[in-house]
Amino acid sequence: MRFDRLLTHARLATMAANGRPYGGTDADAVGIRDGRIVWIGTSEDLPDSVEIHERDDLDGRWVTPALIDCHTHLVFAGDRSGEFERRLAGESYESIARSGGGIKSTVNAVRSATAAELAATALSRLDALNAEGLGTVEIKSGYGLNFESEINMLKAARSLGLVSGVRVRTTLLAAHAVPPEYAGKADAYIDEVCIPLIAEAARQGLADAVDAYCEGIGFSPEQVRRLFEAAKAAGLPVKLHADQLSDLDGAALAAEFGALSADHLEYTNEAGIAAMAKAGMTAVILPGAFYCLNETKKPPIAALREAGVPMALATDANPGTSPVLSLLTIANMGCTLFGMTVEEALAGITRDGARALGLGNEIGTIETGKRCDLAIWDVERPAELVQWIGAKPLHGRILNGEWA
Amino acid sequence: MRFDRLLTHARLATMAANGRPYGGTDADAVGIRDGRIVWIGTSEDLPDSVEIHERDDLDGRWVTPALIDCHTHLVFAGDRSGEFERRLAGESYESIARSGGGIKSTVNAVRSATAAELAATALSRLDALNAEGLGTVEIKSGYGLNFESEINMLKAARSLGLVSGVRVRTTLLAAHAVPPEYAGKADAYIDEVCIPLIAEAARQGLADAVDAYCEGIGFSPEQVRRLFEAAKAAGLPVKLHADQLSDLDGAALAAEFGALSADHLEYTNEAGIAAMAKAGMTAVILPGAFYCLNETKKPPIAALREAGVPMALATDANPGTSPVLSLLTIANMGCTLFGMTVEEALAGITRDGARALGLGNEIGTIETGKRCDLAIWDVERPAELVQWIGAKPLHGRILNGEWA
Ligand SMILES: [Zn+2]
Ligand SMILES: [Zn+2]
Repeated sequence: MRFDRLLTHARLATMAANGRPYGGTDADAVGIRDGRIVWIGTSEDLPDSVEIHERDDLDGRWVTPALIDCHTHLVFAGDRSGEFERRLAGESYESIARSGGGIKSTVNAVRSATAAELAATALSRLDALNAEGLGTVEIKSGYGLNFESEINMLKAARSLGLVSGVRVRTTLLAAHAVPPEYAGKADAYIDEVCIPLIAEAARQGLADAVDAYCEGIGFSPEQVRRLFEAAKAAGLPVKLHADQLSDLDGAALAAEFGALSADHLEYTNEAGIAAMAKAGMTAVILPGAFYCLNETKKPPIAALREAGVPMALATDANPGTSPVLSLLTIANMGCTLFGMTVEEALAGITRDGARALGLGNEIGTIETGKRCDLAIWDVERPAELVQWIGAKPLHGRILNGEWA
Repeated sequence: MRFDRLLTHARLATMAANGRPYGGTDADAVGIRDGRIVWIGTSEDLPDSVEIHERDDLDGRWVTPALIDCHTHLVFAGDRSGEFERRLAGESYESIARSGGGIKSTVNAVRSATAAELAATALSRLDALNAEGLGTVEIKSGYGLNFESEINMLKAARSLGLVSGVRVRTTLLAAHAVPPEYAGKADAYIDEVCIPLIAEAARQGLADAVDAYCEGIGFSPEQVRRLFEAAKAAGLPVKLHADQLSDLDGAALAAEFGALSADHLEYTNEAGIAAMAKAGMTAVILPGAFYCLNETKKPPIAALREAGVPMALATDANPGTSPVLSLLTIANMGCTLFGMTVEEALAGITRDGARALGLGNEIGTIETGKRCDLAIWDVERPAELVQWIGAKPLHGRILNGEWA
């Protein structure tokens, strides 16, 4: 047996569902080969025959799976801080929108940016996530809203995966909003832009999934259904921004298509939750937008828990409704604002984040056979990671078996 | 004329109350001598005769005063994440307190720590604040609750100022809670421990101010009054945790003693606000505890604004009610949760934070004559600093005229 690397004196929060808090274990050593975890045990159990290339003594530090942010809009251009300022000075959303603010201003900025420019500005945001132990991030398109710019956004997202060492999953979200040139013609936008984009993104291998914004101010369930049929035909899995501001039976619609996840879910009803459970879906809880928009309607955490639906937590990082680049703060919000337990919150940014991306067999827990993506922390207990806002607890990351 | 250092191509948000947003100015250069700002102007205005030792081109970056956190409990020992976990798992505050949790557990840990140990653990928390541009921090005692441990806490706080390069203001908060050995004898605790501690802290030069927790579960206005008389006799300014959970006329009491600030103020009444305005006091707004405790009663921001009371914002960093180490997140909470404007929030962690510490003439704005404590940022506009949570916008700090 050969290990490329052996980690010793680790305190492992494996986050595997092994019946112990945080997937605790008596093991304190991890053997790594070819970027994967090939052995977990105690240093004393180490087979004599094993050939070990590198060794790292973790000095008793806590180790979790590297964090997973399964819902972000990390690629964008422009700056919406002026809008933030104006809203707090008392200006209405309508007045801001009339003067070209809101998502329109981001769309204009994205359309006039190159893929390289989009990647460059996203990189500093990715750095902030990395500083808290990120291993995998999902990044959506959805600010181009035309053929060329949506493809540019996906290219920028893919390129971030190549240059940053972080695993990037890309999602085509052309059905994010109706662009100005299709105002009042949402159906035509779906048919002429979104559906052809699915085929093109699939052909170029630029999208790992297809998403839509199902809402009164977004797209109707019927339009989403047409889009999802096209995704199915192209062999791409789907996910859905569902029931954030009103109950459109979005969760049930997503379940009907075997979606990876339904996201937001503030207004999701019991039938939707039951459908998600039956379909083996993951709920993606996004407290950042709830906080930033001063919402009061909380997602049905207790009912999701009861139904056994795994709950991921994600930043929803975007310049309008969730300007948040800290997954640990999001975990805190999941607890403080929504009443998730600390273990649920930590699972939400590791194990259940992986499930929401369809990567539950690859990442998200510390188990033999999985990719060796780890975060190593200077904390006394895993709960500290969730309790503190703005602390800097990361000691280091190991991604694909190498120090990142 | 001689400058030790000249900064050029700066975009200055001076935060001086000069009638322009964020204290904006056409000047883009700052001359520094002996740790102070001695000149502000445009590069073209630079006198020919000036002798310049070092020059830094800031490449058009935004520059603000270094941040000021005017209310923290940064020095403590122990770990309360277990409690956080248990509360979220449904256990009551009472049950946690009965089993030795709550502030008692912190007091026990502090009493068994040395001053050196207290300083060492606080240093990593200070690092988190530094990473967001900190220049000055206030640190309170209040977890020792006996003679020796309160002095140890103040020594630890002072030592942080010596080793970190950050300006530390220390506050004696012996009247934070009644320690177990004085249970039911709060008056005796005030007379036998708190008041003698004031004299000793003053004698050793360990405290810059005296604070108390005026609340039903803390100390009565009458007890605070006795304490404040002693502080006055010792020549130390006072400040007060006032009206956080109930209206005890704490703000008016603080005003009566010409306090530097009254802090929290969720329940402060109109007479209290008027008294603060008349006394020239600063309100210290602490949204971290409001957020973490899921409170609903907000401080009277509009009335304070109306009355012309400056509003500082601070982390209140502590392991029980405000485990927050990000002043920028606190600024965001001031806006998002309490409706402060973005400029008020940024003034709250610079100019008005300085006022709350009685340092309004020394720090908190970029003006000639003041200490040269600056934060240099990679943002498009100052509002971005407040809009984003968890971003890492700091380019660097200059403290006392030197890169920190
Ligand atoms: Zn989203
Ligand atoms: Zn406090």
